[in-house]
Amino acid sequence: MEVKILGIGMTKFGELWSKSLVDLAEEAAVKAVKDAHLQLAALDAIFVGNMLSGVVTGQEHLGALIAERLNLKIPAMRIEGACASGAMAVYQGIQGIASGRFKRVLIIGVEKMTDLSSAEVNQALMGASAEDEEGVNGLTFASLYALMAKAYMEKYGLKEKDLAAVAVKNHYHASLNPLAQFPFKVTLKQVLESPMIADPLKVLDCSPITDGAAALVLSRRQLTVDGGQIPVSIIGNSLVSDTLSLSARKDLIEQVATKKAVAEALKMAGIKLEEIDLAEVHDCFTIAEIISLESLGFFKKGTAAKATARGETRLDGSLPVNTSGGLKACGHPVGATGVKQIIELVLQLRGQAGKRQVKKAKIGLAQNLGGSGSTAVVHILKRENHA
Amino acid sequence: MEVKILGIGMTKFGELWSKSLVDLAEEAAVKAVKDAHLQLAALDAIFVGNMLSGVVTGQEHLGALIAERLNLKIPAMRIEGACASGAMAVYQGIQGIASGRFKRVLIIGVEKMTDLSSAEVNQALMGASAEDEEGVNGLTFASLYALMAKAYMEKYGLKEKDLAAVAVKNHYHASLNPLAQFPFKVTLKQVLESPMIADPLKVLDCSPITDGAAALVLSRRQLTVDGGQIPVSIIGNSLVSDTLSLSARKDLIEQVATKKAVAEALKMAGIKLEEIDLAEVHDCFTIAEIISLESLGFFKKGTAAKATARGETRLDGSLPVNTSGGLKACGHPVGATGVKQIIELVLQLRGQAGKRQVKKAKIGLAQNLGGSGSTAVVHILKRENHA
Repeated sequence: MEVKILGIGMTKFGELWSKSLVDLAEEAAVKAVKDAHLQLAALDAIFVGNMLSGVVTGQEHLGALIAERLNLKIPAMRIEGACASGAMAVYQGIQGIASGRFKRVLIIGVEKMTDLSSAEVNQALMGASAEDEEGVNGLTFASLYALMAKAYMEKYGLKEKDLAAVAVKNHYHASLNPLAQFPFKVTLKQVLESPMIADPLKVLDCSPITDGAAALVLSRRQLTVDGGQIPVSIIGNSLVSDTLSLSARKDLIEQVATKKAVAEALKMAGIKLEEIDLAEVHDCFTIAEIISLESLGFFKKGTAAKATARGETRLDGSLPVNTSGGLKACGHPVGATGVKQIIELVLQLRGQAGKRQVKKAKIGLAQNLGGSGSTAVVHILKRENHA
Repeated sequence: MEVKILGIGMTKFGELWSKSLVDLAEEAAVKAVKDAHLQLAALDAIFVGNMLSGVVTGQEHLGALIAERLNLKIPAMRIEGACASGAMAVYQGIQGIASGRFKRVLIIGVEKMTDLSSAEVNQALMGASAEDEEGVNGLTFASLYALMAKAYMEKYGLKEKDLAAVAVKNHYHASLNPLAQFPFKVTLKQVLESPMIADPLKVLDCSPITDGAAALVLSRRQLTVDGGQIPVSIIGNSLVSDTLSLSARKDLIEQVATKKAVAEALKMAGIKLEEIDLAEVHDCFTIAEIISLESLGFFKKGTAAKATARGETRLDGSLPVNTSGGLKACGHPVGATGVKQIIELVLQLRGQAGKRQVKKAKIGLAQNLGGSGSTAVVHILKRENHA
């Protein structure tokens, strides 16, 4: 069944020291409900995507916490799937609607990460991977993805400058997005000369530590509200898991979960991959965007980096990718990211993306990953009655 | 719609230092699948209820972690609602089935709590309450419930021995449950003379810190497997939230969320409260069982403690409550508790509860709370084709 996106709202992404997690959640929620031309009281349930609140602030039980702030006494659940928590919350919210239980649900992805030191957050993030195997042996997320980058570079002769092209493109997109954490361009030279984090990944190959929230109002039917938004629907989705530990994979540079998820989502949507006009993919590191684009099937293996360098995935290219700026430059508040990806697609499909508007965008795809590809969630969105 | 419970499985509850969280989850899951006369490959999705893994072990992303251990590459989600995480996972799993997405789902409630010191766990548990208001001001869960006990005692003239009757009864039940953490009886004198934790609650008024896991296999339809189990269905359920902070409540000794949840669950089930034969309720503290029984409507306000002392909620009483031993004596691995409550009802409704079997049990109710009553989840179970 199709689910309608009635409203969207997000905070600025960045280092937001003056706002608490619940402040951010409220801000995004209120914006989304306003965008939907509704009142908070019209909501039936809340699904919160969040990974790290327990570790960062000692606060669990975010469903009830956020419901209290919104003055709602309705079912409220927290959903966690590491960096895929946001898209997982959307996936659960859609099930709640499809089950007949709820008519309208609020999805909130939220993360407050800058209250810890960078080292502490990096350790906490290893909770997304096999902590007792990878974490305790000193691996960080940058080094997990560096292993993938090394394997990819060796197999396909990729150079560091090919990876850097992803960062340059996503920073260019972010420069057109006022809510992005890093709304400025970088050059290939800047990326290549930035400090090494985990060979071959440099700091400008990595997504940042970010605070932020993003919210959606989903509905079973489109409401005929005067002045309501241009209708956008979720026409297909899928969530698939793969091994948590990288060592248990047969192939480091193929995302098995992504491959399966996109096939299922396309089947549900009843469309072909070629019909997708633009995509938001999980570029937690530059190499992640390359592998994601190939695992999704947009490019043949070994070719996505070169296509990126040629501009094919830029705003004006044949398949614009991460027009929001991606995790790389829009920022990566982990629980919010999957929801923000969907918001970017909605803006594009409605024609409300301002300076970064993709022309004639009708169908978009979002891919959100948890861990090193251990959870993959794909959503496909379509603008209705394309006028 | 009705959802069938095909299989149940749980570990021993207790201080299980030799087993990891994923060991416990696997053990319960394998038992539940075996009990259902199925293979793991017959499952479509996994819903994991867990609160504290991130804080206790640094491991988040339990869906993918447990799926990997079970060698399954299927949708796997973690659901968190503090001490109601287990029942919340069941609630989400039922939505997954009702939505038409999944035919058979595995629910696993799991918690590993004894890897931290008691003081550390008590601090971590405050993540279930309003941490930045109640936690930082030095409140513990025992003191939150002690405030409720004080208010109740003042209003209804309750004595400490009336509270103690709950502990005596639940320990008696646990003495008949080989999987209970404390499978032994205690006397009223022992409870009253046990060390004070938060006046008026003594150590034997409090549920313990526990490791353990509990699992269910749920299905859209009853499978006609040779040797399959006696069919038990979930015929009604509801999840409701209330304020996270106690100070925001109008009344300390009424659970608004429980009242609303039981009304909705009864309506969905199409039955009256009087038809319930037995109940598992959230007795994290003795006072919690009293307030829960009254908020559920089983007893008038101010009368549940006296009824307990008269034996009405004992195994052989008119409404057996917490025949498993409850959180108090069976143990309280927080994410597992809500699932364990349902397992106890299934055992009773199937007639497999051994020495603690309730006679002619046909319909049972489970109530699981998060925080100080901030989330309430009610499930109603019925034995089919009562023969």
